[in-house]
Amino acid sequence: MSSATKAIKAITADREWEQFHSEENLAKSVAIEAGELLQCFQWGVEFDPGRVQDELADVLTYCLLLADKLGVDPEQIVLQKLAVTREKYPVDKARGRSTKYDAL
Amino acid sequence: MSSATKAIKAITADREWEQFHSEENLAKSVAIEAGELLQCFQWGVEFDPGRVQDELADVLTYCLLLADKLGVDPEQIVLQKLAVTREKYPVDKARGRSTKYDAL
Amino acid sequence: MSSATKAIKAITADREWEQFHSEENLAKSVAIEAGELLQCFQWGVEFDPGRVQDELADVLTYCLLLADKLGVDPEQIVLQKLAVTREKYPVDKARGRSTKYDAL
Amino acid sequence: MSSATKAIKAITADREWEQFHSEENLAKSVAIEAGELLQCFQWGVEFDPGRVQDELADVLTYCLLLADKLGVDPEQIVLQKLAVTREKYPVDKARGRSTKYDAL
Repeated sequence: MSSATKAIKAITADREWEQFHSEENLAKSVAIEAGELLQCFQWGVEFDPGRVQDELADVLTYCLLLADKLGVDPEQIVLQKLAVTREKYPVDKARGRSTKYDAL
Repeated sequence: MSSATKAIKAITADREWEQFHSEENLAKSVAIEAGELLQCFQWGVEFDPGRVQDELADVLTYCLLLADKLGVDPEQIVLQKLAVTREKYPVDKARGRSTKYDAL
Repeated sequence: MSSATKAIKAITADREWEQFHSEENLAKSVAIEAGELLQCFQWGVEFDPGRVQDELADVLTYCLLLADKLGVDPEQIVLQKLAVTREKYPVDKARGRSTKYDAL
Repeated sequence: MSSATKAIKAITADREWEQFHSEENLAKSVAIEAGELLQCFQWGVEFDPGRVQDELADVLTYCLLLADKLGVDPEQIVLQKLAVTREKYPVDKARGRSTKYDAL
């Protein structure tokens, strides 16, 4: 995601928006945009792909800004967390089930 | 993010979890994880960086799954949306302000 | 809801929790609990009624605290907003449709 | 809240909107509106009281619809949940602290 992160940071710097981008404000922004993404599915499973794509892009944008602010690589933290998931959800127990790990 | 997406898809396929991953369920999951990320900041601006990193990774994981399900590249959709942001928020009007574009 | 609000305020006062209850922190708390409510439906429409009831109670609790902090009556603000909804969604146009008012 | 619930149900019935109001869709709606409420505080603690009141009313409206759908009294479930909170957070341990019960 490094080119996307670079592009986001350039837009942000040009507009002097870094002052608004505390970790807390970015976390709120992720949640706000996640609500807008969810709105694409408010009344059912049918959806407008273009609108979903736009809202997903907004969630990702704030995620990348937050990762950058934390000084972590978004791809690396996903891979690290997956290692935990692999442990918590052994294939033989978790196969075909949406049960949470503490109830497996 | 392609290696992260690949790793997520492998974990998902091994556990036969694709059946749960409708676009709608993934959008709900993004919102749920965004709520957990926000919880790191529930009572103020202080936070535990490791916990924030973990919750951010969860949001990103579902975002990448949703992008994959939609058949779009996460980096590309962010760049496309940024082009819209650049238009909506001209530098001279938006500099140093958190005002929404329709009130600029 | 006045007896519920009274009970919440008593618990809060006994524990000296008012210091954490800025409007902003309460709004975050509503969103966090709404995420937990949504989690009851993460993978589909089936749900555990007791768990949904508990999570709904948590959302309501923070809503009542926020209404109290704003100095407004929760029932009154709902009724006021309904008057707006009635105008925005005339019966003849909105009947049987989940379309948003600006697209009716 | 019975008069607010009655008014909401009347508006809903007149527009034949009950068909959209599954428990799951109502839970999504609570989360979506909670995101809009949070947006009032996206960039800081300052806020527009009228806008907060409106968004809070929307969250409450879907909460009341969900309570009605579940066949529970909103005030009662809040009081029931408070009894649990009282147990989990004894006054002498929880006083003046925002720590979660499992870390007290």
